[in-house]
Amino acid sequence: MDDLVAIVPAGGAGTRLWPLSRRSRPKFLLDLTGSGRSMLQDTCSRLAGVAGQTYVVTGAAHAADTARQLPEIGAERLLVEPSPRDSAAAIGLAAAVAHARDPEAVVGSFAADHAIADDAVFAAVVAEAVAVARTGLLVTVGIEPTRPATGFGYVRAGDALEVAGAPSALMVEEFVEKPDTATAEQYLASGRYRWNAGMFVARAATLLDLLDEYRPELGAGLRRLGQAWDTADREAELEAVWPTLERIAFDYAVAEPAAAAGRVAVVPGTFGWDDVGDFGAVGTVLPDAPVQVLGEGEVLATDSSGVVAADSGRLVALLGVDDVVVVDTADVLLVAHRSRAQDVKSFVDRLAADGRTDLL
Amino acid sequence: MDDLVAIVPAGGAGTRLWPLSRRSRPKFLLDLTGSGRSMLQDTCSRLAGVAGQTYVVTGAAHAADTARQLPEIGAERLLVEPSPRDSAAAIGLAAAVAHARDPEAVVGSFAADHAIADDAVFAAVVAEAVAVARTGLLVTVGIEPTRPATGFGYVRAGDALEVAGAPSALMVEEFVEKPDTATAEQYLASGRYRWNAGMFVARAATLLDLLDEYRPELGAGLRRLGQAWDTADREAELEAVWPTLERIAFDYAVAEPAAAAGRVAVVPGTFGWDDVGDFGAVGTVLPDAPVQVLGEGEVLATDSSGVVAADSGRLVALLGVDDVVVVDTADVLLVAHRSRAQDVKSFVDRLAADGRTDLL
Repeated sequence: MDDLVAIVPAGGAGTRLWPLSRRSRPKFLLDLTGSGRSMLQDTCSRLAGVAGQTYVVTGAAHAADTARQLPEIGAERLLVEPSPRDSAAAIGLAAAVAHARDPEAVVGSFAADHAIADDAVFAAVVAEAVAVARTGLLVTVGIEPTRPATGFGYVRAGDALEVAGAPSALMVEEFVEKPDTATAEQYLASGRYRWNAGMFVARAATLLDLLDEYRPELGAGLRRLGQAWDTADREAELEAVWPTLERIAFDYAVAEPAAAAGRVAVVPGTFGWDDVGDFGAVGTVLPDAPVQVLGEGEVLATDSSGVVAADSGRLVALLGVDDVVVVDTADVLLVAHRSRAQDVKSFVDRLAADGRTDLL
Repeated sequence: MDDLVAIVPAGGAGTRLWPLSRRSRPKFLLDLTGSGRSMLQDTCSRLAGVAGQTYVVTGAAHAADTARQLPEIGAERLLVEPSPRDSAAAIGLAAAVAHARDPEAVVGSFAADHAIADDAVFAAVVAEAVAVARTGLLVTVGIEPTRPATGFGYVRAGDALEVAGAPSALMVEEFVEKPDTATAEQYLASGRYRWNAGMFVARAATLLDLLDEYRPELGAGLRRLGQAWDTADREAELEAVWPTLERIAFDYAVAEPAAAAGRVAVVPGTFGWDDVGDFGAVGTVLPDAPVQVLGEGEVLATDSSGVVAADSGRLVALLGVDDVVVVDTADVLLVAHRSRAQDVKSFVDRLAADGRTDLL
């Protein structure tokens, strides 16, 4: 798939992973799987085996850290946004640049901060998605659900497609929001729903056409930036156009209306996926152990279970605590029950309301 | 009670309070009640209202910290042991020095690291004990039990005494070891048992006579040191005698055999007492709150309960954890369930076995 341009929008805070994730050190820059490499580094390594080249789109605030973590991504493929404009602009910008450089390019957008267990299966699934994308459809990868998760959106599949090289591809009937538990159980039982992992593959030309159709001002602005990117006009155009771009998620702007119009396909994915959205999920991707340790810190545990992110160099001693999450950083210590991992965000909200930006 | 000489043996590690207590910063030097003062400082303040003077006996390792915490204790009343020799030697040394200075002195030994709620009641109880001590008995203060505690030794009382100024004094039949739960419940129900809080009052002459009788070599050595203390021979005598002294607890050496011989009385104490032996006990002496905080650190808590010792200056955030003990120090973090507070010592044993003296 040498003509596939992988796009990695590297943004998002990961507030449910506070205090490990901070504004200055967002989730994609962290090692959350114990691999010794950040989520972003793991993502780009995986994509290097799938795509001819990879574009990383990130904000000005994280451009330096991103560049240091990814020496293999040259400046021409590290696209720096002047300010956050959400995922439709980020993905669309990279698609517009790729299209300006090669009108026949196929692009595939993949989150910077998700965990994938089996890279070979992932590559095979992306190959199917590229085959379908060449027919002019927008293609998503839908993760086969393994439990009635309420933390993800879902994709409802329809009829099978007949595309050479894509035997498992299906049409998408609809993207649906995060369900409640009862609905999630129905989804799982039906066999028709997959998790929406935010992976999208399309010809760059297709993606820009869809933007033109559903968000014409956004599409026009992004095409203008794509044309200017490799010219002396880049900065002036960015300054003129970027602040005017609509802030909207790619799912809302493009994927949902395109699905309603019968223009989206899905390739089911069975490669082991998690968005690692909170410390409970961190426990599911770390190597199995009663007490799972993330980081180099030393942990002594007696009659205890849970996840310890030991980031401060201190000894962490656990005694008689079960399903605990301990996150030990230089300036903040979090001790939570694993069942409450989703609610960690509330501390971030509270500190933000109090103006405690030093701790965010 | 101007002729009462209070003795405060300031020793013991408090390993169940690790990592707050360390070899270099033992329990008596810590504030465990939120008073803003150490256990030793609170003890000496309390005794200043009861005794004419206070002697503090401590080891060479803690002499400097003790002196700094207690500027009111002059060098002649701060007795520094060359090496640890347990409580019979510590208390006996102070009694011997007090006796050499005043043969009529009454001495009272009080632990450096226990919490007492009501100083006025304590003073009244000590006054009764002094009155009984003048009759030539060894007098202990027995704490009225409020629960079937298994962590303390007990004193079984016998007949009432007829001593002017000591209406509540009773004879002691026996000191008994820490009981199991069923036995502790019998003790509580019987009304005859009090907690042994390690408080002993006696004429200095009585105390030395008892030592002579039950531990003659120890008694002779301590008398020799008492005679030499205020002379030019102190250092030479300490060097010659101190290393030869038997290492034995005062209870075993003196109190138990004296009780068996009918020479010990008890004055019941109802002033609110705790030995603050572990973090569970710390919770009982701190001001009541769902999350009790010891130290200056900031704690954010949601749906949580327990004790937080916030000693590192970091923010501590708790989420959905109950009966938790969090001890946050510069180089060690402890997270324990409160029910396991007694077992904290196991970490100290393990680190000691591993030669990790930097963390002890």
